[in-house]
Parts: sequence; structure tokens; C-alpha cells
Amino acid sequence: MLEKLKEEVYKANMDLPKYGLVTFTWGNVSGIDRESGLFVIKPSGVDYDLLTPDDMVVVDLNGNKVEGKYNPSSDTATHVELYKAFPNIGGVVHTHSSWATSWAQAGRAIPCYGTTHADYIYGEVPCARCLEGKEFEEYEKNTGLLIVDLFKDKDYEAVPAVLCKNHGPFAWGKDAHEAVHNAVVLEEVAKMASRCELINPQVKPAPQDLQDKHYFRKHGANAYYGQGNK
Amino acid sequence: MLEKLKEEVYKANMDLPKYGLVTFTWGNVSGIDRESGLFVIKPSGVDYDLLTPDDMVVVDLNGNKVEGKYNPSSDTATHVELYKAFPNIGGVVHTHSSWATSWAQAGRAIPCYGTTHADYIYGEVPCARCLEGKEFEEYEKNTGLLIVDLFKDKDYEAVPAVLCKNHGPFAWGKDAHEAVHNAVVLEEVAKMASRCELINPQVKPAPQDLQDKHYFRKHGANAYYGQGNK
Amino acid sequence: MLEKLKEEVYKANMDLPKYGLVTFTWGNVSGIDRESGLFVIKPSGVDYDLLTPDDMVVVDLNGNKVEGKYNPSSDTATHVELYKAFPNIGGVVHTHSSWATSWAQAGRAIPCYGTTHADYIYGEVPCARCLEGKEFEEYEKNTGLLIVDLFKDKDYEAVPAVLCKNHGPFAWGKDAHEAVHNAVVLEEVAKMASRCELINPQVKPAPQDLQDKHYFRKHGANAYYGQGNK
Amino acid sequence: MLEKLKEEVYKANMDLPKYGLVTFTWGNVSGIDRESGLFVIKPSGVDYDLLTPDDMVVVDLNGNKVEGKYNPSSDTATHVELYKAFPNIGGVVHTHSSWATSWAQAGRAIPCYGTTHADYIYGEVPCARCLEGKEFEEYEKNTGLLIVDLFKDKDYEAVPAVLCKNHGPFAWGKDAHEAVHNAVVLEEVAKMASRCELINPQVKPAPQDLQDKHYFRKHGANAYYGQGNK
Repeated sequence: MLEKLKEEVYKANMDLPKYGLVTFTWGNVSGIDRESGLFVIKPSGVDYDLLTPDDMVVVDLNGNKVEGKYNPSSDTATHVELYKAFPNIGGVVHTHSSWATSWAQAGRAIPCYGTTHADYIYGEVPCARCLEGKEFEEYEKNTGLLIVDLFKDKDYEAVPAVLCKNHGPFAWGKDAHEAVHNAVVLEEVAKMASRCELINPQVKPAPQDLQDKHYFRKHGANAYYGQGNK
Repeated sequence: MLEKLKEEVYKANMDLPKYGLVTFTWGNVSGIDRESGLFVIKPSGVDYDLLTPDDMVVVDLNGNKVEGKYNPSSDTATHVELYKAFPNIGGVVHTHSSWATSWAQAGRAIPCYGTTHADYIYGEVPCARCLEGKEFEEYEKNTGLLIVDLFKDKDYEAVPAVLCKNHGPFAWGKDAHEAVHNAVVLEEVAKMASRCELINPQVKPAPQDLQDKHYFRKHGANAYYGQGNK
Repeated sequence: MLEKLKEEVYKANMDLPKYGLVTFTWGNVSGIDRESGLFVIKPSGVDYDLLTPDDMVVVDLNGNKVEGKYNPSSDTATHVELYKAFPNIGGVVHTHSSWATSWAQAGRAIPCYGTTHADYIYGEVPCARCLEGKEFEEYEKNTGLLIVDLFKDKDYEAVPAVLCKNHGPFAWGKDAHEAVHNAVVLEEVAKMASRCELINPQVKPAPQDLQDKHYFRKHGANAYYGQGNK
Repeated sequence: MLEKLKEEVYKANMDLPKYGLVTFTWGNVSGIDRESGLFVIKPSGVDYDLLTPDDMVVVDLNGNKVEGKYNPSSDTATHVELYKAFPNIGGVVHTHSSWATSWAQAGRAIPCYGTTHADYIYGEVPCARCLEGKEFEEYEKNTGLLIVDLFKDKDYEAVPAVLCKNHGPFAWGKDAHEAVHNAVVLEEVAKMASRCELINPQVKPAPQDLQDKHYFRKHGANAYYGQGNK
């Protein structure tokens, strides 16, 4: 069942340790098959060293396990909400990657200081507030709803990442592979933004026209980066 | 004698260089057999490259060597005091890991800024004061007693790590493996707390209900993280 | 066509991941054959893992592709301007290396704080202003022209690197290999300058006579470093 | 000639890249044969990848090459002065290691903030002033003389490392291997001191009795660390 997607999601999960985004099991990637409305996600708390494509868990958009010998990631309910609200995404990733998590703990959005950021993320990476009170009762679901609420006036395709205060980052993309790619970008951007502010505490975000230029160099009808327009 | 425990303690010691927690021989892990009251610990000053399970030293709870061709770790007396005072722990680790040691040198407890911390350590990681005067005469033993004294009103199972001012961290767990796991968590948490304070010097600890939620998601009767409740 | 140069430029490109200067495809190296006025450059957006010498693209000094199955790097027009304005250089490199890019985002020139810097770069590494308004229409070309304008009263052989505000670094050298060597130096120098300012916020640049001594120890008629004067 | 010493010095040089202390050829280690008054040192500017024991250069205490196909390190004259002034040392190392060099560039001595430092270096790591004016004419020799002058009221065996302002660190030991060991300690200590000051800008050096205890735990007649007193 969904063997090709399991293989893709497995590979995307294995990219997390490859790119230094996870310690132990602190991360999970999923990918969705929009036709069936089922998605495939990493099992909860299983070591990356031992993971196989067969260990991936199939879940429906109510968060119920459809197939798999393991429990799905404890963050499954967050993935569900993102897939339901963002129809054009095909993959979601959550990590505790060190720099992005430091910004999340600091409770600050990451300003766009340069083209590395602007090439992939249009404008700042927003930071969702911390949950409170009764919201903790359905912690993972409400984390998802909070992100969705934060994006009600944002373009989730232009801003494929978010920070959750006191927690860590989520990123997404057209498939599991691109979601992880964006998580790597986010970590690099978070690192350089922090260093940049130490080097110049008065630093301002990059000019808007530079942000526009770099984003549209890679995205949209007039993109000319890479081999796509050969 | 205690061959299985020696193997476990050997493996836990070898995880220190694997996770980047030690330079040279600056770390030691022990594991205890509660039935016999004997524990197994790394020999003092032996290179990790050359270490074998047979090199592990067996020590009793008076700190006397029972078996082994080498001297036990020079920190053995600290391990003794922790095993005597914390009956539910099965493993102890001491390192000079870079970020945790930097906090120890700074003499500050590590605040809980987020869920990475809250998943493993309930509340701040406390910092024991520096020894003074006559306490230096039995340095290692008094380091242990100081930690025990600091925990007289704390739950050592909920807070499995401590900093010793001007020195470095100790961590523990239900066995040697879990003790090292907690030492890795501590290092990651120390790193992100430091970066988080640079990103936002006014940052406050995570709300108490988030700390509660994350800790009890993994610990206690209602835990649902991982495969334990399958 | 230019097979030897393609091999050299390929190797220089592969040194970028080796020295940790690139994430994904965020870098490009070129090398020029001054006799024919043609240069060889990395294709745009191709993974380093998959790159071969045959993938290199041959371009003329009008920026037109002369040979190659791929599009040349999207930064080709910047390389063109540097080759046209700096007649003694044979190689150019652009990266988003983390520390140099952090300085570029901060919009600050990197002061010369010591001999590591002075051995390779005479005086500060300058920072070109951000493009603006209509300049974005020919973004890459104008980036090159801006650098050339900044160097109109500087010695590009004594200062083989530059930062572009809100973007990242360019470096150059007598060939592609030396250009990458200078990019590695720049990254190391950027890292240490940032740390140095945190350790001593009142730090001043190194004395001028030290800068002179170290630069001329390695460069010019009286150089005595290495095996060249054997 | 001095084949065993060449092998030792070769190995000690190769430990520099192993421990991450050098970029390119920015470091050199020497070891002396006190009986003959000859020392063995790395050739100048030769890649670590290509280095062999046979490439090591034999030099006398006047700095003259006695044997070897290459020029000796350009820092040879500094090594000469240290060997002449410090009779009990057998090895010297110079690097541009990142954290120690950042302190040197900042022009600050490294305070002793904890036991990692106190175990190897008694008191702060001093920082020699920058050379000036005519001193630059015999740059490397005068660097050595400046260090020797700085240590005229210090114990070079208790403090086996120094920073040279705007330049970088030198370290030494009873042989080439121990000199490199001390250089690794210095780098780790420099890193943690910097982080420690960021975590607590009001931090004070470790109490004197802790410094005494840790130093004498490993040094002198009553040392009990390691297997020496088995």
C-alpha cells in the first residue's frame, strides 16, 4: 500500500540526520497521496539507524492509523491540520533543529536579511504564539490549528516554514523531499540571521525589491534559475 | 564478573565520543548492579580508542576497587555518592561537554526555554555551588555530597542532570545508556538556551503548563510518546 | 574544448562542499582561458553529487553559452564583469558560506584583526552596497559592475574578495583553485573576526606594520614563505 | 638522522588536522633532541595530505638547516627562541586554531573559568603584546623573544601555552605529542571561556583553591589522575 510514497517518505526522513537536523528521534517527515487522502509518516520514537521503508505508518486525514506495525509520530495530528488547510502541499516536516529551535524558544520571527532567505522564503519566517490553558488538552492538533490561523492572511506556498514558540519549526513543500529541503534552508537562514545580528545589532531586513527579485528569480512564470527553462 | 554490565558500561562510554561529548579522556560513565551493590566504571585516563569492555573497573559503594587491572576514574567518589543517595538510578555520567560546561563555568542554572528541554528535564537544570576551603580535601566525594544536598528538595528522576559550578555536568538515568542519553540532551539544551538568549536577551522560560504537558507526554502513567503504549 | 580547464574548474567546484562552503547548490566557481577569452563555469542548480567535468559550461565574455548541455550558473553575468575588469585574475567563486554571508547580511566590511587575514588579504574585506531600483533589472550584471566600481581605487590582487550587502561573498585568484582557496580564507577570517568582537567589543584592527609585514612575507619580490625561494 | 624523532614530529603534525586545529598549512610542530641540540620541524607550506616523515627538516639552535629537502617552517626562529629559553620542553606547536586565535586577535588573556582549564594550565593563558616598529625586521625571532620575556616571571611548565596579540597561539610540552595535546586543550578552553562570558557577562575566574586542587591532582608528587600511580 502506497509503497512508492513510503520509500519517498523514508528517504526524506533519512535526510534529517544526513543534514544534521536531528538528535536521536527528534524529527518526523510525512508525505501525502492527495488522491486517496492518506499520508505516510515516520513511526514514533524509532531510531533512524533502524528505520526501514516498511516501518512507515499510513494515516488518514482524521489522524487514524490505516496501516503499519508501529504508532505514527506523536506529532501526527499537527501534520493532519496542515494537510487539511494547505491543499497544495505534499510533504510536512517537524524537527528540533538547533538554530531554528533557538529562534522558536526566543519567540521571534526570523527577519529576511539576505538572498539566501529570499530565494526560498518570501518575507520573515513567522513565529506562532505558545499554546495556553485548555489548548494543551489536544496539544498536537491545536499546534496545527494555530499555524493555520497564523497563515490565514499569508501565502503558505511563498512562506513554507513556521516557528512555534517554545517548541520548534515546521516546514512543508510540494512533497516530502521539498519539505526537508525547506527545513535545511530554514536552519541555515536561522543560523546566519543570529550571527548577522551579533555582527551588526542595528541591522535592518533586506530591501523589499531585493526580496522580490530573488524570490521571483526562482519562483513563478519568469523564473530562470536552474535547468527548468532550458 | 558482571560481564554483561561491563559490556553495557563500555558501550555507554563509547557513546561519549560518538555524540561529541568528550575531548581526550574527559568523561566517564558507570552503571550499577543494585543486587550486589557493585558498580562498573571507566578506568582513569585511558584513551577511548584503546578501551575494551575488559578494561572496565568494578567498584563497591565504599569506592574500593573490587576487580580490574586499572585504577577507576578519578571521579569515582562522586559516582558513589550519587548511587547511595538516588536509589532508582542505574547509571551516572560525567563529561566536560562544551556547552554544558560553559553554563557550569558561568555558574548559572539552565532555564527551560522549550519543549526539547521539557521533554526530558522538568524545570531548570540546577547549578551546584563551587566547593570551598576544606571541602577540597575530599574533592570528588564532596562534589557528590553537594549535588545530593542540592537535590534534597528536588526530584532526581524528573531532573536527571546537574551542573557543578566552575567544573562541568553530571547526568544520570535508569541505566548507563539512559544516563548518556540525558547527557546528550543536556548538551543540546545548553547550546540552544545560550543561542536563544543571544537572539532575545529578554526571553522568559516556557510557560509552566507547556512544561507540564511535554514532560508528562513522555513520563508517567499517561505517556503516549514512542511505542510503549502500543 | 578546454578539457583541461573544465577538469580544473570541476575540481575547484568540488572543493566547495569539501571545505564546507556550500549547502545544496549555493555556490559556483569559474576559470578563464585568457587566450581564447572563454571561461568555464558550473551549470546552474546541478547537485554537487552528480557533477562531472563534462557538465561544465563554456561561456564567452558577452555571457553567451559557447558549449555545454546545461545552462550556466545564474551568476554568470557577475563572473563576466569581474573577468573583464580584473585582467590578472583567472578564477572567480561565489558562495553563500555561512560566516562571510553573515557579515554581508550585516552590511559590514571585515576588519583585519590579525595575521590570518593579513597573510592573504591586505586591509579590510570591503562590502559593496545593495543594488536598488532599476539596477535589479539586470541583477547579476549590476552586481558585477558594483564590485568593479568599489575596486576602482583598490588593488584587486591584494584584496581578492568582496562582500555584497544582503547577499554574500565573491572571491577570485590567479586560477579557479586559488579563488576557492581565498574563499576558504575569507570564511575563516569572517568567523574569527566575529568571535573576536564578542570577546573584546573594543577591539581595534591590527597595526598597519603587522599587516604590511605579513602580506609581504607571502607576496611580492621578498616573499619567503613556502618552498618558492628554495 | 634522528629518524625516530622525525616520525614522532610527523605524527604530532598530523594530529593538527585530526583535531581540527588547522586550515590548509597554517600550523607547525617541532620536537627537539636535547643531546645533539638539533630539532625537527615541519617544512614550510607543504600540504598535510602530502606530508611524510622524510619531509621533516632538521634544524640547529641557530636556526640553520642541517638536513632536509625542504625549507623549514617560516616560524622556525620562534621555535628556536622557545627551545633556548625553556630547557625542559621537548616540543613546540604553532597554529591559527579558530578560538585561540580569536582571543589573540582580541588581545586578551584567557581567564581560568573552570577545571578543564585548571587541569592543564595554571592560571590564565597570557597574551603577549603585538610587535612594533623595528621588531618586525626579525619578526619570527622577536616573536619568540617576546614570549620568553613575558614568561620571565612565569612558570613555563605550569603554563604551557601563550597567545600572541593579532596573531595566534603557541603551545609546548615535554615532547611534540604533549605540545599538540596542550594546543587542543587551549582551543577547547578558549571556546568555553568565550561562551561562558556570553552566558554570564559578570562571570569571575574560578576560585584559587579550585585551580590549585585541579592542577596538583594531575601534576607534581601527589598527582593521582590516570594510571601513573598504579
